[in-house]
Amino acid sequence: MGYDAVYDKMKDECGVFGIWAVGQSEEAANFTYLGLHALQHRGQESAGIVSSDGETLHTHRDMGLVADIFDADVLSTLKGGAAIGHVRYSTTGASHLKNAQPLAVQYAGGPVALAHNGNLVNAEALRAELEAQGSIFTASTDSEVIVHLIARARASGAPGSAEQLVGAVRQALGRVSGAYSILFLTPKVMVGARDPMGFRPLVLGRLKGSWVLASETTALDLIEAEYVREVEPGELVIVDGSGLRSERLFPDQRPQARLGRCVFEHIYFARPDTVLFGRSVYAVRHGFGRQLAREHAVNADLVIPVPDSGVPAAIGYAEESGIPFAMGLVRSHYVGRTFIEPQQSIRHFGVKLKLNALKDVLSGKRVVVVDDSVVRGTTSRKIVKMLRSAGAREVHLRISSPPTAWPCYYGIDTPSRQELVASTHSVEEIATYVTADTLGYLSLDGMYASMGAERSGFCDACFTGEYLIQFPKRTAPPPLRLVGQ
Amino acid sequence: MGYDAVYDKMKDECGVFGIWAVGQSEEAANFTYLGLHALQHRGQESAGIVSSDGETLHTHRDMGLVADIFDADVLSTLKGGAAIGHVRYSTTGASHLKNAQPLAVQYAGGPVALAHNGNLVNAEALRAELEAQGSIFTASTDSEVIVHLIARARASGAPGSAEQLVGAVRQALGRVSGAYSILFLTPKVMVGARDPMGFRPLVLGRLKGSWVLASETTALDLIEAEYVREVEPGELVIVDGSGLRSERLFPDQRPQARLGRCVFEHIYFARPDTVLFGRSVYAVRHGFGRQLAREHAVNADLVIPVPDSGVPAAIGYAEESGIPFAMGLVRSHYVGRTFIEPQQSIRHFGVKLKLNALKDVLSGKRVVVVDDSVVRGTTSRKIVKMLRSAGAREVHLRISSPPTAWPCYYGIDTPSRQELVASTHSVEEIATYVTADTLGYLSLDGMYASMGAERSGFCDACFTGEYLIQFPKRTAPPPLRLVGQ
Amino acid sequence: MGYDAVYDKMKDECGVFGIWAVGQSEEAANFTYLGLHALQHRGQESAGIVSSDGETLHTHRDMGLVADIFDADVLSTLKGGAAIGHVRYSTTGASHLKNAQPLAVQYAGGPVALAHNGNLVNAEALRAELEAQGSIFTASTDSEVIVHLIARARASGAPGSAEQLVGAVRQALGRVSGAYSILFLTPKVMVGARDPMGFRPLVLGRLKGSWVLASETTALDLIEAEYVREVEPGELVIVDGSGLRSERLFPDQRPQARLGRCVFEHIYFARPDTVLFGRSVYAVRHGFGRQLAREHAVNADLVIPVPDSGVPAAIGYAEESGIPFAMGLVRSHYVGRTFIEPQQSIRHFGVKLKLNALKDVLSGKRVVVVDDSVVRGTTSRKIVKMLRSAGAREVHLRISSPPTAWPCYYGIDTPSRQELVASTHSVEEIATYVTADTLGYLSLDGMYASMGAERSGFCDACFTGEYLIQFPKRTAPPPLRLVGQ
Amino acid sequence: MGYDAVYDKMKDECGVFGIWAVGQSEEAANFTYLGLHALQHRGQESAGIVSSDGETLHTHRDMGLVADIFDADVLSTLKGGAAIGHVRYSTTGASHLKNAQPLAVQYAGGPVALAHNGNLVNAEALRAELEAQGSIFTASTDSEVIVHLIARARASGAPGSAEQLVGAVRQALGRVSGAYSILFLTPKVMVGARDPMGFRPLVLGRLKGSWVLASETTALDLIEAEYVREVEPGELVIVDGSGLRSERLFPDQRPQARLGRCVFEHIYFARPDTVLFGRSVYAVRHGFGRQLAREHAVNADLVIPVPDSGVPAAIGYAEESGIPFAMGLVRSHYVGRTFIEPQQSIRHFGVKLKLNALKDVLSGKRVVVVDDSVVRGTTSRKIVKMLRSAGAREVHLRISSPPTAWPCYYGIDTPSRQELVASTHSVEEIATYVTADTLGYLSLDGMYASMGAERSGFCDACFTGEYLIQFPKRTAPPPLRLVGQ
Repeated sequence: MGYDAVYDKMKDECGVFGIWAVGQSEEAANFTYLGLHALQHRGQESAGIVSSDGETLHTHRDMGLVADIFDADVLSTLKGGAAIGHVRYSTTGASHLKNAQPLAVQYAGGPVALAHNGNLVNAEALRAELEAQGSIFTASTDSEVIVHLIARARASGAPGSAEQLVGAVRQALGRVSGAYSILFLTPKVMVGARDPMGFRPLVLGRLKGSWVLASETTALDLIEAEYVREVEPGELVIVDGSGLRSERLFPDQRPQARLGRCVFEHIYFARPDTVLFGRSVYAVRHGFGRQLAREHAVNADLVIPVPDSGVPAAIGYAEESGIPFAMGLVRSHYVGRTFIEPQQSIRHFGVKLKLNALKDVLSGKRVVVVDDSVVRGTTSRKIVKMLRSAGAREVHLRISSPPTAWPCYYGIDTPSRQELVASTHSVEEIATYVTADTLGYLSLDGMYASMGAERSGFCDACFTGEYLIQFPKRTAPPPLRLVGQ
Repeated sequence: MGYDAVYDKMKDECGVFGIWAVGQSEEAANFTYLGLHALQHRGQESAGIVSSDGETLHTHRDMGLVADIFDADVLSTLKGGAAIGHVRYSTTGASHLKNAQPLAVQYAGGPVALAHNGNLVNAEALRAELEAQGSIFTASTDSEVIVHLIARARASGAPGSAEQLVGAVRQALGRVSGAYSILFLTPKVMVGARDPMGFRPLVLGRLKGSWVLASETTALDLIEAEYVREVEPGELVIVDGSGLRSERLFPDQRPQARLGRCVFEHIYFARPDTVLFGRSVYAVRHGFGRQLAREHAVNADLVIPVPDSGVPAAIGYAEESGIPFAMGLVRSHYVGRTFIEPQQSIRHFGVKLKLNALKDVLSGKRVVVVDDSVVRGTTSRKIVKMLRSAGAREVHLRISSPPTAWPCYYGIDTPSRQELVASTHSVEEIATYVTADTLGYLSLDGMYASMGAERSGFCDACFTGEYLIQFPKRTAPPPLRLVGQ
Repeated sequence: MGYDAVYDKMKDECGVFGIWAVGQSEEAANFTYLGLHALQHRGQESAGIVSSDGETLHTHRDMGLVADIFDADVLSTLKGGAAIGHVRYSTTGASHLKNAQPLAVQYAGGPVALAHNGNLVNAEALRAELEAQGSIFTASTDSEVIVHLIARARASGAPGSAEQLVGAVRQALGRVSGAYSILFLTPKVMVGARDPMGFRPLVLGRLKGSWVLASETTALDLIEAEYVREVEPGELVIVDGSGLRSERLFPDQRPQARLGRCVFEHIYFARPDTVLFGRSVYAVRHGFGRQLAREHAVNADLVIPVPDSGVPAAIGYAEESGIPFAMGLVRSHYVGRTFIEPQQSIRHFGVKLKLNALKDVLSGKRVVVVDDSVVRGTTSRKIVKMLRSAGAREVHLRISSPPTAWPCYYGIDTPSRQELVASTHSVEEIATYVTADTLGYLSLDGMYASMGAERSGFCDACFTGEYLIQFPKRTAPPPLRLVGQ
Repeated sequence: MGYDAVYDKMKDECGVFGIWAVGQSEEAANFTYLGLHALQHRGQESAGIVSSDGETLHTHRDMGLVADIFDADVLSTLKGGAAIGHVRYSTTGASHLKNAQPLAVQYAGGPVALAHNGNLVNAEALRAELEAQGSIFTASTDSEVIVHLIARARASGAPGSAEQLVGAVRQALGRVSGAYSILFLTPKVMVGARDPMGFRPLVLGRLKGSWVLASETTALDLIEAEYVREVEPGELVIVDGSGLRSERLFPDQRPQARLGRCVFEHIYFARPDTVLFGRSVYAVRHGFGRQLAREHAVNADLVIPVPDSGVPAAIGYAEESGIPFAMGLVRSHYVGRTFIEPQQSIRHFGVKLKLNALKDVLSGKRVVVVDDSVVRGTTSRKIVKMLRSAGAREVHLRISSPPTAWPCYYGIDTPSRQELVASTHSVEEIATYVTADTLGYLSLDGMYASMGAERSGFCDACFTGEYLIQFPKRTAPPPLRLVGQ
């Protein structure tokens, strides 16, 4: 349907974290640092923290991993009892500091910072409109649109007050269309909001006198905060000196009948130790594996996962099938971004640098290998070949999700339609391409059944092409972009 | 008059450089790099270059010296035949990358970059007005106000065209009040402008087919460009594919009878090898020294300068007085920003790290020491003491400018009134404080006479308090500022 | 027996890699870079490569991970068809570049480089002797002793020839006592040697015309080299322009009846995909788990590993016991060296930063948790507590090795005897300390039985205190050490 | 005479500093840091400090400037009341950390550090001899030879005692031939020595209870230490807990009749504020200029220096000749090591990046330009051309030293004979090459006469080829050198 050609724009995968100490504390930045570390799997390209000391905001952002960006000296400059943080990964070739979050700006309401997970579908139209009204843009993220909309909102309440910020946030988010789990911080208030369909996760936690908002519960676990509940789709959470209160983001709208929680978070993106949308990610993946064994049984000697994300499903498959489980592929955890490959003799180290097959385990065996998804097919092909080189007699590829045939526009990094092997090839063709003896995908119905969930609670557009949010008409050529820091 | 308390804001000292190759060239960034190197004395804190390849802009900015920020790899990413650059020094305690220039943003007219030397007096009022209209600010410089005014201008012409940019620049600069020598760059055009009073310098040069704009002629010399002339106060220079044309910035305004060229550039700030406001800086300083000798003769054995800026005036003083000239103070050129001093025994290394007195030259001598100005008096006091420790029998301090009694609001870094020793002390009191045997300042009339110049062409507010631009009434408390990167 | 107090010296864990292209190739450094990456688990503190271009040696060493130390520019300076490399981890508080390997020095035989895995027991005595003869030391590693012994050897053959180097290596290694798998490189020859008891691993591989030596087969797998065989204990391998030849390191000595292959490499240190001492590490660990289940059965609902090293044994335990296997602990792979912890409220993040327990999986369950070893007991204690906090009803700790009661002096990092909980506490006391419901260690006999191996082929001093090499009498106080780079 | 071809080896220019607090102080490293800063002009490539806390030595060395290498954190690790430091510049293409000083090693006498200024003429022979005896070398400096000789000395006294160190130093220095002003530090004693001919400077100072040794008095000035006297040629200074004592380095040798103080230090290398070999450098240079005016008078309008080193001589020339003095060339102090030049249009920025000529001052003038020396002639040629481009009608080049026709082997960086323009060209030919109207060098006799000095006290081999120390016969080909870090 040609969405790709039109919307070939930057896609962000991100994690957010925020904490507000109702009582006294100067450790907000330290807790945010730990929280971001626990969310590092959601984005390894840049990270940032903005803290509030009650009077002003303090900011630090940089490219790299959380543990490298922040040290004791930097954290000591991020004073105050409240903070929000962000980790980010983008799919654009060049990664720029100017796109790092949280954004922190000054507007008529005073200073405000923003940490956003998700993608908007009408960002370009809004940007063109804002530029026509005289706004200037310094970055290339959707999130900058939101901060401009806040600056142009006409909200009642004293500048810098919770009332004024909440009013501005409602007006701004009322204009945008798409996926957002988003945190705002001013010197006086922290606000969290989740779009009405609830694409991206956001949870609420409590640590003694402090309230915590985070993308995943694993961040709560690390700081030993108690998991309270999901922030609901369409919910607005306001935390300030008087405590926490919850409101409907758009009180005049009826709650959505159809929700859009991202099922791919369960399949691949979230950490297995997270409670996501009210369900244990590990248990869900384990159940996918069991269901997959029921749908695509095969005679084999061994079930092995593609580590790390395929492990729970492989265990489930092994249990359900009664075939022994083994770690037939070992993963290296030292792979960096800029690995140098020899010039002449050897090519395509990509997969080999991360994975190695155990000859001793695989030799002569009929092997079921369980992975979470197939994107372009090239990695699966290399894995199958690696298993055969290690001596596997048969290789049966089992995928713990339906075929990924449509790109995501709501916050998961997927390539364009043309690059998704399942968009243009049948399962049989894919099996041939990846050189597997057999290939089985989890069915859509089986996926929901194994979760015990209604499909109406989830977005599965990447499998079905049923996008829950309309795309706006394209009205103008994309504006030129600035390049560089 | 209390200006200080109200306007205790960031003051920038800066240098700007721009080049537009009418013919074909891919070396604009390389020439800009050299030009900024020649202007490094105007700002050592941060630097940046934005280039245009005709389609888009490429940016690199960082903290530090030009030679450290740019290398061959970085320069190779700054493609294209046109570029502008900026070096900056600010007086705020914390120096932030976000304040580095050139600014580069996206607005309705497309991408635009800006490099600004000077300070505005109505920046805060404009900022408050812009924020009230929904603008957001990410930095704390005056220059961001200008870019917002451009984005909000209603100029005719196609977006990105020279006509549209020039119209927007005129509207924007029509709103601001203060000092600016400023360069703009879009993919299609470079524009230079100088405020109607001409506070800060800006010169035009020619290098084969290219046009060059720079703060000082020393930047032209290094790239072997020909010096054409000053950009006139109130002049607008437009360079694009069709060549260079000059217009009046505000055609409806009559040219200013009273101009405001900064006389302090001649006294201290500019490099001695520069032709500034049509005069050789070296010759002007040399003449100041001769005049100073006429106004404040003294019997002495030796005339020595405080290097490096005091050298030409000391040579002039020695010639006029017939007293031998000597380099009785040696300057170290390896002093960095973060020098560590021993904790216990020794204090106040500041001046000693830079200057050392030659006992052999000074011992038993009556010494005239020539410096360009006295700010707080503390450095002069240390120098006089250093000369006495080295054996000088008498120390006669001669200053090649009138007493600095008023802060500058137009682009030179000076402390607040309270800190300027000449604002609250007589010459005799200052002589006593700095422990000089005698102290003589150049007279205001003598300064202009020795230049052969009319006072009406210059701003000398730092000596006289006669500020040429009105300050706006302060209407609101200063907005909170974001802290950090 | 007080060994600790006397020999509380630096212990190194290391990996080595070497390649010699018999034909033409300029890629030796690139392959070494890949090989070191595959051996990164053996040392993450520093790394280095020395290459030979046939005329001279080229060196690069630095602190950090292989992927960070080397880039294309650096590798391009490491010219030539032969190279050796080293990764290192040391247990001393301060880590210094001067201790990074390979060592590269100039001596009478020309330039020589050395990469050493293992620890010597008579290094200090030799060092004292060498110093008494006028040698100077710049680092604090055992390996520097070996290079001095080579420099002082009286070997026949032309300086720089294979004959001369081999003679010098034999004389040098004839003086040292302890563990070494060691590579030497000169412009003309590469030599590999393994001590007569074979403590540390070393394998030989072949990649087309090149010969490869590496600590583990995983390095061969990555570069797609063929595994030829172990370098035998007491074997000397010489590779030069005329090919590879193997000799006895000490031809006059009889081969050792008792060998000392490090059983702890199988238990913990080697990668599971390695073939170590002729056996698959994964298969050995899996067998340990099965044997452990036979020796220490328990009624439980779940078997979980402490990832990553405990995974194969846990799978084995689960299979043998019939209890379901689950990944009840999730490991983070983003933990750096310098993690900052909050100051006030939360302490002891060490284990929590790496591991998180899955409440959903563990809640209400009787859990068998399988780890490879217990050192101080503190980590086990935190893990047991973490499992209980996550809701485990019972926690049964199973260790896939015998109690670690004695420090290693042959190349594995272990603390001193006093710190080893098993040296002073019974199994029951340890169980109480770590708060486990039950604790079971693999028996020594069971360990060997499950491997199908004779104890006489291995060193198990860490479990039994039966050190295979005598310690020299201590004759002098330890010399002062230089501190710093 | 072909010395160059044989001895085309590394030449070091260096500065040394040492301090020993007889009383209590923990600031030795801080004072050394300041002292090295004052000596930075003697070497900008690498620097280091070794301190003694009475028990052990602490070391930090790195590439770069003193102010960049050391910060408060680093200095705080360099504990103790005694320290030595070193700044270094080498002429080899590649600069390596391994060659940075002070050297710090462990030998039979304990830890010892060494900071050396000067070059040895028999280093290669000694190195070959030491290697033949089993010594290994890690760097490529002369200084490493000295430390090996110390390690092999047979000195009486307890290891680490002053007696033992002094004995070893005497034996070691008794073997070497060449130039050295050298400092040694052990936990218990600091020793300074100067070779019997006194090529390189070394002075003694006193700061309250502390003794200071430094290459130049400018380092004493900065820390406000009192200048006591030169360390005499052939003197040995020993400082330890019992205070300072002076001895003859070789008591059995008669003092040298002919001394070798480097006259080039006076001409160019030392800072003008230093008292060198008992004479003020500024006064000596000033006198050279006066003498030069007497020897090579010319009708002219202006005398200008090549800054900075030519300034005192130009002032002297102007005074003696009565021709006005002017700063017709301005020097930039921001030139770094790695300046990038444009690729296509402009070449040979070398001199232009450092110097700019003042058109206004020079236009139409007959100019005498005074420089300290001519090496290859290329720089002089560029300067003369630059002056003519700026409008000078005549350019008369005056050099405040005799023609430099011979390379230095005693510690000053000079190119090989072939590259020295004066070794193969007459003064007239050089004048033609550099395009000067006239060229005049200071005569050798005039040089000494203007100093009021006997030639027998100085080395002037660079002008006369009369080398005061014999070169050893070359017996072996130069050994291969290791390349890299």
